[in-house]
Amino acid sequence: MSTEYSPGLDGIVLGPTELSDVEGETGTLTYRGYPIEELAAHASYEETVYLLWYGDLPTAEELEDFTDRLARNRTLPKPLPGLLESLVELDDEPMDALRTAVSALTASDGSSAEANGSQEATEHAAVRLTALVPTIVATYVRLRNGEEPLEPRDDLGHAANFLYMLTGSEPDPVVADTFDMALVLHLDHGINASTFSGKVNASTLATAYGSVTGSLAALSGPLHGGANADVMRMLKEVEESGKEPTAWVQDAIDRGERVPGFGHRVYQVKDPRAVVLQERSKALAQAADEMKWYTYSTQIEDFLVSEKGINPNVDFYSASMYYVMDIPIDVYTPIFAISRIAGWLAHLFEQYDDNRLIRPLGDYVGDHGKVVSPLEER
Amino acid sequence: MSTEYSPGLDGIVLGPTELSDVEGETGTLTYRGYPIEELAAHASYEETVYLLWYGDLPTAEELEDFTDRLARNRTLPKPLPGLLESLVELDDEPMDALRTAVSALTASDGSSAEANGSQEATEHAAVRLTALVPTIVATYVRLRNGEEPLEPRDDLGHAANFLYMLTGSEPDPVVADTFDMALVLHLDHGINASTFSGKVNASTLATAYGSVTGSLAALSGPLHGGANADVMRMLKEVEESGKEPTAWVQDAIDRGERVPGFGHRVYQVKDPRAVVLQERSKALAQAADEMKWYTYSTQIEDFLVSEKGINPNVDFYSASMYYVMDIPIDVYTPIFAISRIAGWLAHLFEQYDDNRLIRPLGDYVGDHGKVVSPLEER
Repeated sequence: MSTEYSPGLDGIVLGPTELSDVEGETGTLTYRGYPIEELAAHASYEETVYLLWYGDLPTAEELEDFTDRLARNRTLPKPLPGLLESLVELDDEPMDALRTAVSALTASDGSSAEANGSQEATEHAAVRLTALVPTIVATYVRLRNGEEPLEPRDDLGHAANFLYMLTGSEPDPVVADTFDMALVLHLDHGINASTFSGKVNASTLATAYGSVTGSLAALSGPLHGGANADVMRMLKEVEESGKEPTAWVQDAIDRGERVPGFGHRVYQVKDPRAVVLQERSKALAQAADEMKWYTYSTQIEDFLVSEKGINPNVDFYSASMYYVMDIPIDVYTPIFAISRIAGWLAHLFEQYDDNRLIRPLGDYVGDHGKVVSPLEER
Repeated sequence: MSTEYSPGLDGIVLGPTELSDVEGETGTLTYRGYPIEELAAHASYEETVYLLWYGDLPTAEELEDFTDRLARNRTLPKPLPGLLESLVELDDEPMDALRTAVSALTASDGSSAEANGSQEATEHAAVRLTALVPTIVATYVRLRNGEEPLEPRDDLGHAANFLYMLTGSEPDPVVADTFDMALVLHLDHGINASTFSGKVNASTLATAYGSVTGSLAALSGPLHGGANADVMRMLKEVEESGKEPTAWVQDAIDRGERVPGFGHRVYQVKDPRAVVLQERSKALAQAADEMKWYTYSTQIEDFLVSEKGINPNVDFYSASMYYVMDIPIDVYTPIFAISRIAGWLAHLFEQYDDNRLIRPLGDYVGDHGKVVSPLEER
């Protein structure tokens, strides 16, 4: 057949967006006009979410109001505390538990299903979802550790409150600030697979809750958000092997394995988020006097750039940074979700605002006109 | 800009598929070579699922083995009984509760996450999901009615067991056969929005559970599976209005409302599933001596075909048929899911088998190079 296939939708342009611009050739990322480096240096996660949702950075008054709305929505509603306990008991994977818990938030939403896709219903869901995902992740981790879950603190910012709920102590300001910056960097990235999954769901006028539940599934995949945990597992394997990092990576390539944290569908140069994360990862490693993982990472990057011409992506330097922050490896992808949930929601606002059902075609290559023979004659 | 947009991916061909062929111009639907009318008349749901998953209709021995595997997996695992109770207590919508319950099935899967996308892991999940969705739906409805949930019966087929678990009595053979036929008709339909949503998620190598959880979100939307319930709500409104059905529909159109159950992205003629469902809906209505809903439906169809040139789709005649079967209106979309879940899984087998990350592009139409001004100067 002469049909042209687009199995990865490579190069297909879904439509206009005012949210983020991923420029693959120059390695630049822009949120609503602001280069990512500018936001990482000068804006908090709350400010950047406001920018994405409402179009402009908030004034002091708007920020206070927005921060307050998020802080007031941090406490887990029914049936989540019990649901998380039972999922931990069954040893459910953190990303699976997070997906199930987020899906269960419809039960406590309180607004009517008729409002699917309306600005008001989506905004109500968006504030709840962004505020609650960190609580879900922190509660899950503490339950798994046999620790009592903590109530959220409404006097702390989004990043600091999460680290407090996770560890039980108020984080060092440098750590909280670095974590906040990581959340800013992970917030949005064009029509990536999890964002696209959410848009497909929303295009049927499914609720924002259902739509981001699908996005969480997409993000869990090792070809998407799952990669940051795989990077740290690799660095640990390198250490255990006793080999030079470059030798270990060459062996992995020889075995036909993919090196996690490298390469990207859109970027042809180094991912600009990796540039910022590398700087902050280095600073944090120096402050903690634990340079090993950072050093392994730079050696692997130098080797793969010069030998294979492939560049690190956002998942590569976040791994060693979270590790130095003492965050459990299987929580790296849930942390990606803590940030990206608000980006998904920004794209849902755009999708609902100018909706068209998203439905491509398949090219059927099978038979036609067959007749069902009776069971006993098959 | 000269960028060409594809907001609904209209006409974009994702790739080859051997599963189903939707021919819009002639109004034909084929599953793996068999016209849908042939399967609806001569094959059970279990036989048709086997056909989709394994490529051929089963022999008697294969069918017995497959039926047995499904029947053995029908009992709800932890934490589902308690989870469904708490969702019913909070008055969660049936499709939302189903999505949360399906998502929670990862916790009891028992196979390792490393197996994402493997034939074995997907098949294990596929049997569990197809077997368990009917139990989840029936349990939810009984709990909501204040009735004790029933244990599944492994001596009944897929359709009859669901109706038994829903109502508490073994269904009349004609009703069970009609319901089985409806499940066959709803099983697969090319790369529709919910199937596509599952493929997007699976393309990141997310698990089958996560992928179909996303599909359930897509199916819940009123522009997709949610339409069958809307059809019945419309028929009830017609009755309550005391108007002629055609006059009611004309008024709705004059108010700018969409008539549910009409029109389809692909079909330019009458949906072949609507043809079969219409016949069986009529037979069932005659047997039950309750022709009103069927008669309203044909009057509305005749009017819209001649006046507006739009044809009924699969959701139109399933509505009055389920109503005569005494199935609660808000369970129509979950019933769509009871059937379609196995179709989604067939597409996941195809996706994992020849995977490429699905990621289109957006066309950024915003600014660049903005500078963050200090909060107090905004």
